[in-house]
Amino acid sequence: MSRHVPLHGIIGYTITPFQEDGRVDLGTLQLLTDRMAGSGVHAIAPLGSTGSLPYLDDGEREAVIEATMKAVRGRVPVLAGVSSLTTERTLHHARFAERAGAAAVMVIPMSYWKLTEEEIFRHFDRIASALSIPIMAYNNPATGGLDMTPEFLARLLQIPNVTMVKESTGDVGRMHRLRQVAGEDVAFYNGSNPLALAAFAAGARGWCTAAPALIPELNLRLYREVVQKGDLAAARKVFQQQLPLLQFIVKGGLPRTIAAGLELRGTRVGPLRAPLLPLPETEREALRRILEKLEV
Amino acid sequence: MSRHVPLHGIIGYTITPFQEDGRVDLGTLQLLTDRMAGSGVHAIAPLGSTGSLPYLDDGEREAVIEATMKAVRGRVPVLAGVSSLTTERTLHHARFAERAGAAAVMVIPMSYWKLTEEEIFRHFDRIASALSIPIMAYNNPATGGLDMTPEFLARLLQIPNVTMVKESTGDVGRMHRLRQVAGEDVAFYNGSNPLALAAFAAGARGWCTAAPALIPELNLRLYREVVQKGDLAAARKVFQQQLPLLQFIVKGGLPRTIAAGLELRGTRVGPLRAPLLPLPETEREALRRILEKLEV
Amino acid sequence: MSRHVPLHGIIGYTITPFQEDGRVDLGTLQLLTDRMAGSGVHAIAPLGSTGSLPYLDDGEREAVIEATMKAVRGRVPVLAGVSSLTTERTLHHARFAERAGAAAVMVIPMSYWKLTEEEIFRHFDRIASALSIPIMAYNNPATGGLDMTPEFLARLLQIPNVTMVKESTGDVGRMHRLRQVAGEDVAFYNGSNPLALAAFAAGARGWCTAAPALIPELNLRLYREVVQKGDLAAARKVFQQQLPLLQFIVKGGLPRTIAAGLELRGTRVGPLRAPLLPLPETEREALRRILEKLEV
Amino acid sequence: MSRHVPLHGIIGYTITPFQEDGRVDLGTLQLLTDRMAGSGVHAIAPLGSTGSLPYLDDGEREAVIEATMKAVRGRVPVLAGVSSLTTERTLHHARFAERAGAAAVMVIPMSYWKLTEEEIFRHFDRIASALSIPIMAYNNPATGGLDMTPEFLARLLQIPNVTMVKESTGDVGRMHRLRQVAGEDVAFYNGSNPLALAAFAAGARGWCTAAPALIPELNLRLYREVVQKGDLAAARKVFQQQLPLLQFIVKGGLPRTIAAGLELRGTRVGPLRAPLLPLPETEREALRRILEKLEV
Repeated sequence: MSRHVPLHGIIGYTITPFQEDGRVDLGTLQLLTDRMAGSGVHAIAPLGSTGSLPYLDDGEREAVIEATMKAVRGRVPVLAGVSSLTTERTLHHARFAERAGAAAVMVIPMSYWKLTEEEIFRHFDRIASALSIPIMAYNNPATGGLDMTPEFLARLLQIPNVTMVKESTGDVGRMHRLRQVAGEDVAFYNGSNPLALAAFAAGARGWCTAAPALIPELNLRLYREVVQKGDLAAARKVFQQQLPLLQFIVKGGLPRTIAAGLELRGTRVGPLRAPLLPLPETEREALRRILEKLEV
Repeated sequence: MSRHVPLHGIIGYTITPFQEDGRVDLGTLQLLTDRMAGSGVHAIAPLGSTGSLPYLDDGEREAVIEATMKAVRGRVPVLAGVSSLTTERTLHHARFAERAGAAAVMVIPMSYWKLTEEEIFRHFDRIASALSIPIMAYNNPATGGLDMTPEFLARLLQIPNVTMVKESTGDVGRMHRLRQVAGEDVAFYNGSNPLALAAFAAGARGWCTAAPALIPELNLRLYREVVQKGDLAAARKVFQQQLPLLQFIVKGGLPRTIAAGLELRGTRVGPLRAPLLPLPETEREALRRILEKLEV
Repeated sequence: MSRHVPLHGIIGYTITPFQEDGRVDLGTLQLLTDRMAGSGVHAIAPLGSTGSLPYLDDGEREAVIEATMKAVRGRVPVLAGVSSLTTERTLHHARFAERAGAAAVMVIPMSYWKLTEEEIFRHFDRIASALSIPIMAYNNPATGGLDMTPEFLARLLQIPNVTMVKESTGDVGRMHRLRQVAGEDVAFYNGSNPLALAAFAAGARGWCTAAPALIPELNLRLYREVVQKGDLAAARKVFQQQLPLLQFIVKGGLPRTIAAGLELRGTRVGPLRAPLLPLPETEREALRRILEKLEV
Repeated sequence: MSRHVPLHGIIGYTITPFQEDGRVDLGTLQLLTDRMAGSGVHAIAPLGSTGSLPYLDDGEREAVIEATMKAVRGRVPVLAGVSSLTTERTLHHARFAERAGAAAVMVIPMSYWKLTEEEIFRHFDRIASALSIPIMAYNNPATGGLDMTPEFLARLLQIPNVTMVKESTGDVGRMHRLRQVAGEDVAFYNGSNPLALAAFAAGARGWCTAAPALIPELNLRLYREVVQKGDLAAARKVFQQQLPLLQFIVKGGLPRTIAAGLELRGTRVGPLRAPLLPLPETEREALRRILEKLEV
């Protein structure tokens, strides 16, 4: 297999909506996915942190993948989240996503017990050897509980179909370091919303973000200004414009804040799964003001 | 329901052994549990971090509880780990443990998304309201990813059947602070092995530890010297004696090191579940030397 | 020189009072020092963090040492703080303290640039080689900015007249670890107020504390109960009684809170040196209530 | 006074060389300063962390300022470091620098005791009110021990002649946040070498760096590519080229590594002041290789 890198640009993460009775709401999921796929984003990513992946059971994950593929209808590539605590379950979901037509899968090593680098390497190697689509190795110690250094990520990238890295530590120095140790052609993506401009300046291929559920045009405009036009002054302007929303969704938690934003915009997406609670009323009000300002 | 506190002293945590094909080895589990229950410990705790709880599926968890109850045969109370990421699954396993005869259940709030205090409180409240056995609220940010302050733990203790706290931050100041805010009769337990002496000196009711799989007599002797006899000099001596083993199992990870120790002592307990790997050979050798020194 | 260890028990740290014009108030310093020396504490320590050491110039430090020696009048040993950023200035003050009659000097390695272990070792070695009184190596990363591991402290203790360690990280595990690597006879002292009981239980020779300026009798009673009588239940009781004050002075900063406490008790001690400000009024009120409760 | 901002571009920090007997070597200081002022940098900054400021006594600081002014001969503005632990000493040195002709002074609040925001604000306010040249507020918790948030820095900028901020946390998000709360015209400078490209992309006015002692042309080229030409691809290339040296000097400590680099290039700069030691031989060798690669 060659170093296949099927993703670039704005990669939009979808939330998983629920019905009032707690079941996954596949109808609304398809509605939201269809809307995002039509908004101009370059890829769609179900079952990320935004999609409440770890709170879903096996059957629900499979149903979300299938519903997503149907809603996307091949317009853009699909990047499917498949992470589980055990290697066996991760492998199971990766294979399911491959069969369903995903362009790539995203894998974050998850901790209860802290994993050694050897354990993480074998986890990826085992999953990669059973797939023919590429893997994006996802580093986010704040959620997954494990930190992978640029040096270790470069080692993971030696596994044939681990071809992409998503960096979410919020430290742009990691991205420059990754280029240093993995080569300047390394395909890395930014997963830290407040770092979007800095990451593109550092050479990121794409931005993995939940924000397109609310502001796809602003996200796309940043990409165009900095990557396509190379106009830093314009890029800074459009970045600072969307920064309050980016900061808000990061601080309040992605599923919670995106759900609140969608409801403020008129789409019912139901409760989060317990123990997760909805956005408190005062924060909802703050979000309403941020969104209004962006619409002017 | 009154403030029922069914646990004290040395609470021994059991590992979950596996067969070579990856399935849980219930026969060896019963052997190890029977042996520990007969060693003099004051309670048995299956499905803790030591028992690889988060790596087991629903059916495996239930089988472990049932096998444990059979092996203990009522000699000591059983404290069952029942934590899951969702409230619904935690509740399911808590009820199962209650029906199976557990004296209490242990609940650690788990994070992928960081939970707010309100989310954690409702999680406990919902579980507690469906049980008639008491709950031990377990604080261990290093594994669960969430930290509960003494002030918040005191609030949890106002839920009728949340009657016990297990503190594993390794900060003895938290225990003194808990006594301050929850009253000097608060039933707290230490889950940080290197803190065992300090915690008993601070008034801990018990020590939650995986060490009795290897050195039950030393663990029990510490309890007797410091709690029953109040002989600090003797307690320090027996504590410093077992400290190298305690440090080793904490540093190397409990399931991994306890499994290696049991194998060094002649009991086959099988592989850990991937991605977890067995203890590397050089560390195994270090453990062998620590154990030999303790046996002299 | 033999391993001379001249200190044990309650080691009372004095503040440095100032006049309204900003100069050191040597008269009040002598009054406070005389009072503390007569209170039953086992040693007096001027020029610690409590004594605002780093904010004093060379002449002021020397004047404080001389005034302290006069006020103590040989009743108890004096432990003098002599730390500076440079080795040369530390050495200068250590020699001055020795000539003035101090029983020992306390040295905390200070950082602007983080020092390597080799730099810290040579710093201590150079100072020790020019003194004939013993040195207490003081570890407090929260103020000094450098952390010394138990293993490194054990190495420092191989310098002939580095005979004592003061541990202020607040981690009692460090103390047990120090006994493990430096031998069970190692002379270590606790500098973390909320750890006082745990540290004595771990075998600390003494407690370095600013609290005797306000509650010498309670501090001494803790020492008697736990070290001399070995009565843990009584020790816990007297410890929990004084804990609110200990927590308050740690949280609010020692010079600021002790100064406020002395003023509430009727002794004018003047302003702190800028940029340090006095305790805000609401906190002063909280301190008043804590002190009143202790006096009942 | 208006919002005077006299600095932009590459602001080169000079080391303080020493003679073998430990005294400051003013002759070599003037040689190095003259050379840097002639290299094209936009400003010269003596007495920063690079200049070992906290390890110098009052007279030495004054001599360094005077020697620097003479060597610069008005070619570029001089930014003088004047920080001390006390407000009184900081004020003394700030006034001295103003009289000597410095264009601005840099002030980092320094901690032994952690300062409250109120204490830091009054410290700056007191110093600013006695000066007529502008102040750069310097945030670097890794050396100074205190962290100032963007919100607090915006408050400091309301003091009339606090007109510039130097951010050295290494978090580019702080810079975007500062623009958000202090206005898009805020004059901020980057003090974290590995963040140089990201900071310019974020709108930094300048880069405060010790690197021009060794590679002024590469530093200047980055500024030209990203700020003047807006060519991100070229900027990334020249940034990645100099990144190994930037990482090396940050990791090894600025005075130590710059001194070693100057000696490798043939200029004797003498020992550091104890307890600081010179760069170990193996690291010196690594530095030699990095420099050789940059010279090809």
